[in-house]
Amino acid sequence: MIEIKKSPTSKIDKTNFDNLVFGQVFTDHMMECDYKNGEWQKPVIKPYGPLSLDPSARVFHYGQAVFEGMKAYKDKDDKIWLFRPEENFNRINRSSERLAIPEFPKEYFFNALVELLKLEKDWIKKGFGNSLYLRPFVIATEPGVSASAAKEYKFMIICSPAQAYYSGEVRVKFSEKYSRAADGGVGYAKAAGNYGAQFYPTNLVKEEGFQQIIWTDANSHEYLEEAGTMNIFFRIGDKLITAPTNDRILDGVTRKSVIALAKENNIDIEIRRVSVQEVIEAAENNELMEIFGSGTATVINPVAGFGHKDKKFELPKLENSYASFFKDKLMKIQYNEAEDKFGWRYEVK
Amino acid sequence: MIEIKKSPTSKIDKTNFDNLVFGQVFTDHMMECDYKNGEWQKPVIKPYGPLSLDPSARVFHYGQAVFEGMKAYKDKDDKIWLFRPEENFNRINRSSERLAIPEFPKEYFFNALVELLKLEKDWIKKGFGNSLYLRPFVIATEPGVSASAAKEYKFMIICSPAQAYYSGEVRVKFSEKYSRAADGGVGYAKAAGNYGAQFYPTNLVKEEGFQQIIWTDANSHEYLEEAGTMNIFFRIGDKLITAPTNDRILDGVTRKSVIALAKENNIDIEIRRVSVQEVIEAAENNELMEIFGSGTATVINPVAGFGHKDKKFELPKLENSYASFFKDKLMKIQYNEAEDKFGWRYEVK
Ligand SMILES: Cc1ncc(COP(=O)(O)O)c(C=O)c1O
Ligand SMILES: Cc1ncc(COP(=O)(O)O)c(C=O)c1O
Repeated sequence: MIEIKKSPTSKIDKTNFDNLVFGQVFTDHMMECDYKNGEWQKPVIKPYGPLSLDPSARVFHYGQAVFEGMKAYKDKDDKIWLFRPEENFNRINRSSERLAIPEFPKEYFFNALVELLKLEKDWIKKGFGNSLYLRPFVIATEPGVSASAAKEYKFMIICSPAQAYYSGEVRVKFSEKYSRAADGGVGYAKAAGNYGAQFYPTNLVKEEGFQQIIWTDANSHEYLEEAGTMNIFFRIGDKLITAPTNDRILDGVTRKSVIALAKENNIDIEIRRVSVQEVIEAAENNELMEIFGSGTATVINPVAGFGHKDKKFELPKLENSYASFFKDKLMKIQYNEAEDKFGWRYEVK
Repeated sequence: MIEIKKSPTSKIDKTNFDNLVFGQVFTDHMMECDYKNGEWQKPVIKPYGPLSLDPSARVFHYGQAVFEGMKAYKDKDDKIWLFRPEENFNRINRSSERLAIPEFPKEYFFNALVELLKLEKDWIKKGFGNSLYLRPFVIATEPGVSASAAKEYKFMIICSPAQAYYSGEVRVKFSEKYSRAADGGVGYAKAAGNYGAQFYPTNLVKEEGFQQIIWTDANSHEYLEEAGTMNIFFRIGDKLITAPTNDRILDGVTRKSVIALAKENNIDIEIRRVSVQEVIEAAENNELMEIFGSGTATVINPVAGFGHKDKKFELPKLENSYASFFKDKLMKIQYNEAEDKFGWRYEVK
């Protein structure tokens, strides 16, 4: 169905797979599909290269853009797998709806992923932690600076080889002034503008020695919601707690997989609002065992310490952390090394 | 200072100035200035044409983009004027700071505006209502899909000839569910993402017969804040009321000019929170005389009626409205037909 224009050359031999910076190197091909005259045109896979857009294209002026993040994994037998891709497909269309972007057809999405991955299969390296990061995104391309939804869009998928993500110890600051999303806003969507809005407050906490912010609710700053690109879990004693999703929080695929695995493994999990106060009290009483983030890029990211106002707290270094338990469980499923009880794997063939 | 590459041809003869759609036609030249290696490079004026950007450029993924809107006017003697351009300059840098974009130098901004307008002077038509709309904007151009502030940007100015903006009667709906901005968010910035986020809720009210939303505070939806691209004024009896600016509301140049003119002309003006309830009560008691929006594109836009939940209200049609009083005052200053007591005009020469 999809048209394929193969690149005459490949950059793969010039790529150092042992020294990849996340999101910097892209593969030889990309998928592009235009929306015009009221419908999505025929998707095309073609050589990776620059886009030519009018300076008045709406994406530049009105941030009408959404994206997804997913990964392809290669198992020991060279089979290629995706993890719950249907979730990403559904989510990009939920994001699109909120940004007044037309829905993308399911068969186009899966057909494009499969054909692109078959073409780029050598870019996916074996070994725990290696993957091909996939970035589907949609941008409003129609020229014209009037503030209304565009009539023309581009849906694209670009691919970037990734190694296990290790960013050093992560310390987070609880937000007390800035906020990520409003009730009734676009926080639940993977809307481009949600991310650019976080850079400045994040830069401020970096100066205080933190790497990330944990966003609190905009109204009271009393409840902990999520991090910049991760949902967030708190372990108090043996109980795991994470905030419920709402219209401010991204409904993470990794988050919902952790919740399912917790239930399967009889880990006591509560999905409810988590207050700043209870987390600080637990930390002061030495009951706060772990904080970790969940997201496609890092899988599970343990948090070494956190700050709130002028106070700083360090978390214990555990032998048998929930964080490493879930990371191992998830990765074994992703790399086809464990049974897939929930039917999360999707073979690319 | 600025480098100028003149276009060998002009589109001006092919442009029908009596039938301009807002923001659709652009002039022959544009200003472009790149930020790299930690500084803004030399600005260039060159033929208007497409941008070539890597598909991983951060503006597409993270909405790291801000803009401004201003107009150039031609008086009866062919002199060209800007209206309070320093305000737009300061505001784009305030917006940039919040989006973690480096500040643009003042001399570059003014030099670029003046040289561009001198080059495009034939595109500015005389006559009340005619103008050249100027769109300065900044986008993050650095390739790479990692969610952090870019190291490379493009500052641009594009120009679009405009006629008096008449969009028919405008009816507005007070927002009760969706919201535009959070406390601690980016509402006060002209950040691209703020606009794309409004399209879907606005489309929903269009289906109910309204053209725009008046956004309320995200916490309670009890206070009226601003419209999509306009600040908003309410006249109850002879008193004019507008919301104070805060970190959710854009500090409009037209708004602050209306406030100054109201004071100068002894119109009773209050800058304070405006509740949905008081506006509805005033409407029910026939004390609500006017609602109007203020913004560069429309100058002053009278509102014919409004809706809240299931109720709809029509506003009286006044002979001597504040809306037309301020519109006339402002335009006479903008077109150099009245004394400029406040020093708002800036001659381009
Ligand atoms: C704001 C935000 N929260 C959470 C996540 C984690 O979601 P997922 O597990 O689907 O990658 C992401 C990243 O995708 C994100 O951008
Ligand atoms: C959200 C918003 N509010 C208000 C305004 C009015 O501001 P100004 O009068 O400076 O054009 C604009 C348009 O610029 C806007 O985008």
